[in-house]
Amino acid sequence: MGIPPHILNKLLSFLEEDMGFGDETSTLLIPSDLTVKAKVIAKAHGILAGVEEVKALLRSLRVRVIRSKDDGDRIAPGDVVMEIEGNARVILGAERTLLNILMHMSGIATMTKRLVDKARKRNPSVRIAATRKTLPGLRYFEKKAVRIGGGDTHRLRLDDMLLIKDNHLRIVGDVRRALELASSRSFSKKVEIEVTCVEDALEAAKAGADIIMLDNMKPMEIIRAVKLLEREGLRDKVLLEASGGIDEDNIEEYAATGVDVISLGMITHSSRAIDMSLEVEPPTSRNANRD
Amino acid sequence: MGIPPHILNKLLSFLEEDMGFGDETSTLLIPSDLTVKAKVIAKAHGILAGVEEVKALLRSLRVRVIRSKDDGDRIAPGDVVMEIEGNARVILGAERTLLNILMHMSGIATMTKRLVDKARKRNPSVRIAATRKTLPGLRYFEKKAVRIGGGDTHRLRLDDMLLIKDNHLRIVGDVRRALELASSRSFSKKVEIEVTCVEDALEAAKAGADIIMLDNMKPMEIIRAVKLLEREGLRDKVLLEASGGIDEDNIEEYAATGVDVISLGMITHSSRAIDMSLEVEPPTSRNANRD
Amino acid sequence: MGIPPHILNKLLSFLEEDMGFGDETSTLLIPSDLTVKAKVIAKAHGILAGVEEVKALLRSLRVRVIRSKDDGDRIAPGDVVMEIEGNARVILGAERTLLNILMHMSGIATMTKRLVDKARKRNPSVRIAATRKTLPGLRYFEKKAVRIGGGDTHRLRLDDMLLIKDNHLRIVGDVRRALELASSRSFSKKVEIEVTCVEDALEAAKAGADIIMLDNMKPMEIIRAVKLLEREGLRDKVLLEASGGIDEDNIEEYAATGVDVISLGMITHSSRAIDMSLEVEPPTSRNANRD
Amino acid sequence: MGIPPHILNKLLSFLEEDMGFGDETSTLLIPSDLTVKAKVIAKAHGILAGVEEVKALLRSLRVRVIRSKDDGDRIAPGDVVMEIEGNARVILGAERTLLNILMHMSGIATMTKRLVDKARKRNPSVRIAATRKTLPGLRYFEKKAVRIGGGDTHRLRLDDMLLIKDNHLRIVGDVRRALELASSRSFSKKVEIEVTCVEDALEAAKAGADIIMLDNMKPMEIIRAVKLLEREGLRDKVLLEASGGIDEDNIEEYAATGVDVISLGMITHSSRAIDMSLEVEPPTSRNANRD
Amino acid sequence: MGIPPHILNKLLSFLEEDMGFGDETSTLLIPSDLTVKAKVIAKAHGILAGVEEVKALLRSLRVRVIRSKDDGDRIAPGDVVMEIEGNARVILGAERTLLNILMHMSGIATMTKRLVDKARKRNPSVRIAATRKTLPGLRYFEKKAVRIGGGDTHRLRLDDMLLIKDNHLRIVGDVRRALELASSRSFSKKVEIEVTCVEDALEAAKAGADIIMLDNMKPMEIIRAVKLLEREGLRDKVLLEASGGIDEDNIEEYAATGVDVISLGMITHSSRAIDMSLEVEPPTSRNANRD
Amino acid sequence: MGIPPHILNKLLSFLEEDMGFGDETSTLLIPSDLTVKAKVIAKAHGILAGVEEVKALLRSLRVRVIRSKDDGDRIAPGDVVMEIEGNARVILGAERTLLNILMHMSGIATMTKRLVDKARKRNPSVRIAATRKTLPGLRYFEKKAVRIGGGDTHRLRLDDMLLIKDNHLRIVGDVRRALELASSRSFSKKVEIEVTCVEDALEAAKAGADIIMLDNMKPMEIIRAVKLLEREGLRDKVLLEASGGIDEDNIEEYAATGVDVISLGMITHSSRAIDMSLEVEPPTSRNANRD
Repeated sequence: MGIPPHILNKLLSFLEEDMGFGDETSTLLIPSDLTVKAKVIAKAHGILAGVEEVKALLRSLRVRVIRSKDDGDRIAPGDVVMEIEGNARVILGAERTLLNILMHMSGIATMTKRLVDKARKRNPSVRIAATRKTLPGLRYFEKKAVRIGGGDTHRLRLDDMLLIKDNHLRIVGDVRRALELASSRSFSKKVEIEVTCVEDALEAAKAGADIIMLDNMKPMEIIRAVKLLEREGLRDKVLLEASGGIDEDNIEEYAATGVDVISLGMITHSSRAIDMSLEVEPPTSRNANRD
Repeated sequence: MGIPPHILNKLLSFLEEDMGFGDETSTLLIPSDLTVKAKVIAKAHGILAGVEEVKALLRSLRVRVIRSKDDGDRIAPGDVVMEIEGNARVILGAERTLLNILMHMSGIATMTKRLVDKARKRNPSVRIAATRKTLPGLRYFEKKAVRIGGGDTHRLRLDDMLLIKDNHLRIVGDVRRALELASSRSFSKKVEIEVTCVEDALEAAKAGADIIMLDNMKPMEIIRAVKLLEREGLRDKVLLEASGGIDEDNIEEYAATGVDVISLGMITHSSRAIDMSLEVEPPTSRNANRD
Repeated sequence: MGIPPHILNKLLSFLEEDMGFGDETSTLLIPSDLTVKAKVIAKAHGILAGVEEVKALLRSLRVRVIRSKDDGDRIAPGDVVMEIEGNARVILGAERTLLNILMHMSGIATMTKRLVDKARKRNPSVRIAATRKTLPGLRYFEKKAVRIGGGDTHRLRLDDMLLIKDNHLRIVGDVRRALELASSRSFSKKVEIEVTCVEDALEAAKAGADIIMLDNMKPMEIIRAVKLLEREGLRDKVLLEASGGIDEDNIEEYAATGVDVISLGMITHSSRAIDMSLEVEPPTSRNANRD
Repeated sequence: MGIPPHILNKLLSFLEEDMGFGDETSTLLIPSDLTVKAKVIAKAHGILAGVEEVKALLRSLRVRVIRSKDDGDRIAPGDVVMEIEGNARVILGAERTLLNILMHMSGIATMTKRLVDKARKRNPSVRIAATRKTLPGLRYFEKKAVRIGGGDTHRLRLDDMLLIKDNHLRIVGDVRRALELASSRSFSKKVEIEVTCVEDALEAAKAGADIIMLDNMKPMEIIRAVKLLEREGLRDKVLLEASGGIDEDNIEEYAATGVDVISLGMITHSSRAIDMSLEVEPPTSRNANRD
Repeated sequence: MGIPPHILNKLLSFLEEDMGFGDETSTLLIPSDLTVKAKVIAKAHGILAGVEEVKALLRSLRVRVIRSKDDGDRIAPGDVVMEIEGNARVILGAERTLLNILMHMSGIATMTKRLVDKARKRNPSVRIAATRKTLPGLRYFEKKAVRIGGGDTHRLRLDDMLLIKDNHLRIVGDVRRALELASSRSFSKKVEIEVTCVEDALEAAKAGADIIMLDNMKPMEIIRAVKLLEREGLRDKVLLEASGGIDEDNIEEYAATGVDVISLGMITHSSRAIDMSLEVEPPTSRNANRD
Repeated sequence: MGIPPHILNKLLSFLEEDMGFGDETSTLLIPSDLTVKAKVIAKAHGILAGVEEVKALLRSLRVRVIRSKDDGDRIAPGDVVMEIEGNARVILGAERTLLNILMHMSGIATMTKRLVDKARKRNPSVRIAATRKTLPGLRYFEKKAVRIGGGDTHRLRLDDMLLIKDNHLRIVGDVRRALELASSRSFSKKVEIEVTCVEDALEAAKAGADIIMLDNMKPMEIIRAVKLLEREGLRDKVLLEASGGIDEDNIEEYAATGVDVISLGMITHSSRAIDMSLEVEPPTSRNANRD
């Protein structure tokens, strides 16, 4: 429904990658016209994601979804995530692909939720954001899983916000000059700048940045930056994002600094899959015979 | 060089995913004709992978690779993985994509190598194999990283070997019947069958399986299966693969059972990226001025 | 150089659309190995655009660009826009495609520049923006031409800013409710809302909109809205965009209202091409013989 | 129905271009399962085109077309062009794309019809033809709009007829030599040649051209060419096409010369969109609540 | 059903190749809403193949298949292969494409069946296999037709088995060295080696090849190789494939040698189409009138 | 050079089809940086075709063509068709694909030439034409091979000429009505009509057909048709094409009837490949060692 047409094409290309010329095993073992039911079963705790994508894929394969949990639902080992019915060869041919999608997206949603919960204990309004450190080809799926887990997608690609990074500054020279050049951007885009010290944060706020990324700064330094901006009456004019070196162990400390956003690459580049399996119901003996 | 043309197209599609209409920040901040050098720097220990892919991508972008470590090399924090030279906007536009490829593939190669080393301490000829639990769209890259890490790719897709799994058996009925149906496959393909008990392993070996997957069986049971097959004079006729529930903590125990292959989904679906960054050399002051 | 790889593919697809199985006329009339020079000649006044795209296309066809005017240059009838050299069949096969690109993009840049100049006479800081009323498949090229002409690209697509329009309001109910729902967007995105009366403009500003589109409002009403927002101390907190019913005849009047942005669909959906032609230099008699 | 499959893919790519990762505004504001009706309303006079394409696009999006005017129908401000029903997010996500298609194709059909009507007042059998000066990527849509407006598509691409142009003649040398070379073409193709003077027109007719393009010749010269061919008994053997420098102001004069075809690049490269809008019906209050 | 999604896309691309901008003849002659029935009629004897593919294509075009023979059925001149019903323009637009698929695939299945029948008269368990000498872009269709005709697909592509050929041996040096290098392949893949003399066949069997291709060897030599392997107790450890210079005239002689597999490039690269035609039923007079 | 960009993409897709994830055998056996020379050797008599396509493919793979015969050259067993130099893995990976292209296209060119020579003995100006009975996906390559063999491509696709066939006539009713409907086609297109008797041929000529296809008519009937048209003074106004049931055995008889064109589906759907092989030169012993 909300899936853009090219994302559906991408889902089909995932299937192609796994199928090649077809599922040889099922072609030899399974009658071509056998209809079966099957269940996707969770084998770990987590937050479910990927349901909308898998449903779209199954619909285009003419497999019926009998019932299904929703994106964002909590799941536990043994839970039936989805129950489907369709041609046996088609279901077995798509099994691995749909599990790979659900397991990966749920892994990301689950880690996001855990980080959001931790951080909000210390700072109820802080946002946990992903970065562009997504796995190649999977940005749509990973950013969506982050949102399902309660996180913020951050920039989707290089054209939807300006983010002035260390490498830009090495070429341009300084924060003020960089922000001047950025002011000719479209009025529809925000500009963010990466700084590594309190002084540059102040400079950036004065020069009109919409968002300031405090990169690889210790919590104590960040607190100093927040205080300084408050003192200068600039705190309300900018959003502050902490980034770099943040993980599950120290995220509460960063949240407590009072920043608006905490971003972590690991949400997308180092998530762990939530294990699931697909189980076909054995057909009644009559239909199981191969003709 | 060894990269098939459609994989190069895929690499370019990864860039497209990140670029959209272009790198707005660099367009505004960086002169269009500025040439710079840049280094990819490792920030963690690991086994390097993705070099051949990134080189192919850079060549198609007309960025020169001055020097580079090779796929399979050990890297440590601070190591220069690659040194490149080219148009500044092009390098900054490709930065995130090439890092995402290197970090992900190196993460997989690194985990694979660690598992191989562990397992071979107990069984010097055992193979550590990946599964089809790869992230959607990334199978080529992940299987290749597994090989770079010293692992075995296992089946590439559904058409290059027969693997009779639990769901097939639920439909077909029993091991013998399944292997009979599989015997009409092309002479060029092996057949593997998944079993969950010692008796079925024996049945499968007798019925002519090339490979038997001992699925979710405890090490003690696997040892019983190995012994039984030896006693029946069938051990040399089949390869044995242990799969299911194996991780870094218990892999040595599984290796010690004497199986030929140990396969783990986590190698590909739950790897952790090896962190790297790209650093542009500041140009001399003359060229840095934007005209 | 700054052209993303998929845009180069799109340029090649434009060629494919025109070529089909090939340029039958040139195949029969022109020797396969004849090298010629050719010039692109302007036949009207305007602002040149499309040069970077055409250069990229020609490079991929191995046609050398000897010299060329730049994007943004003023051109007049008789001006040599570009001088090229390459295989005669290739140049004639690409002739129509490259002219179509240059003529269309220059048409848009030219109209944009004229509108910008007019509007800035009355309001030196006003921006003239395009809309999403671009011709299907040509958004990259048209938005870029707008920028070359001195305009603002506005939103590139549906995912890079929130723009709450009349149809959203019909469903959601009112401005305040809509802006509340929009507040859960990513911190990286601005939100704009379309209003049709002064009261809603005030409401929108109070509710935290980043940009307010004054849609189909007369200049007098817009002036009232500006005044009201100034009185309420909200004018500096929002950007104001006038849109709807604006054309070359009344744009000065709208500019004079003090809005920040004026947007017009006609820049992209109803531009007129700047005419150009390509002229091949006759080869010396020796080479002209067909073998 | 009459839409080739790759054109449907192109229509979907137009949607992709506008959607990116999805319609962020509607995702946040509109319930995912809300069904609405909507109307496409004409805001100007013209000839409608693009209906078949938009219907095909909507069907693939599972939006129902309740009723619709047909391609070729006259429309006036306020007319309901199409009434549709479907998922609210899907309709709002496709709104701009479908309007862009309808507005552009109708703009071309409208201009074509106006030119045909003008020309036929003076020469009832004259054909008004488009050229290959179509906007890149839109040839199918623009040629079809020309046909809907009563015009002739002329050559679709470089492989479906031979058209010997000035640049060919510069290389080959003269009309007779060019037509000799062209005689080895497939028997299934016509050959047309561009001439700029009366003498070459006669030469071309004698040498067996099927069609002669009188390029950039004044009406008086064209009349002389027609007379000369009649005198030589060749008028019935060739079709005559006037091209170059023809517009709405002088088309009647060209029609009166007695040529068979008048072709104009402006029909496709400089048309003006026929304005239309899409209006969603407000849902009843119950459904409007977002869950 | 068993058709992978990208193969359906390929089928649609075959249609695109034939349609271009559409079926001009039918557009002018046939009413847009006329529904007709049509029959595919065999005009030669053979084994039918391509039915599953054509059905998938027709379904995506919304043409109903009323009844149809199955892949593998014998057909004779006059047989109704398929009876369909749908939009007249759509059926006529797809006519040539669907006939081209059925005729080519049936041609291959027919030749395969004839060769299998001949060879099995002398050696009931021999397999007749295709090679990679398939026509570019048609491998899926040709390999499938071979299977329908009772043949063996052999390797599908360069990544699903190792096949050490003469050119590899020229570079590597000798059979033993080549098989050593091949032993590091994935455990999931077989290895085959091409030899041209009895001695190398023995060497290959000793070195652990799974399959030995006896290339361009006379039947007498092959018999010597078989005998030698039996004497050495190696015959059961390897499959033997005869290849090179085998055709319909000598295949029985090769079958009689006792090899396991006989492969022939001509099955795919030099098959003859089985002629078929499509006949539309004349509509009743009422509907035939064009409006 | 004369190869349109999308045809080069198609050539690369042929390689993809054969490579999958890569050439496993060469990866294991051949050093990655080994450079070799190789020759394409003809193994049968014929007319060479496919050279331009294979050169384009090799160039994009960075394999150098040292020397090569040309399209249209006669070849005999043992002839060196092409000599190339490049990376050993790349050459072996492309070997099968390039041979498949050359062998198939040469097969078609050879058969075409043979038919042209035969037919012209009896009718020196007759054209031998292919049909749309080309193998799916290969129309460009097959039509080009026909031209190289001296044949006529006939219609390239459904949009470049009108051809009214039996199925159209079944729906429309009669020849005159069909040609009336066809008269509204673009002036740039010819119209051909299929007839099966002398009377309809006369009717078609009177009604203004450009070309008349005499379908499945015996030579005697065709001679009657030719005579009748001459008598009526219509022979010069139409081209006559004989089609249906024509093969190598009776083509001379058909040529002698005096038709302008003879078309045969078998040229493309039932050609036999011209056998060729690729032989790598053994490298000097030093380089052959694998490191």
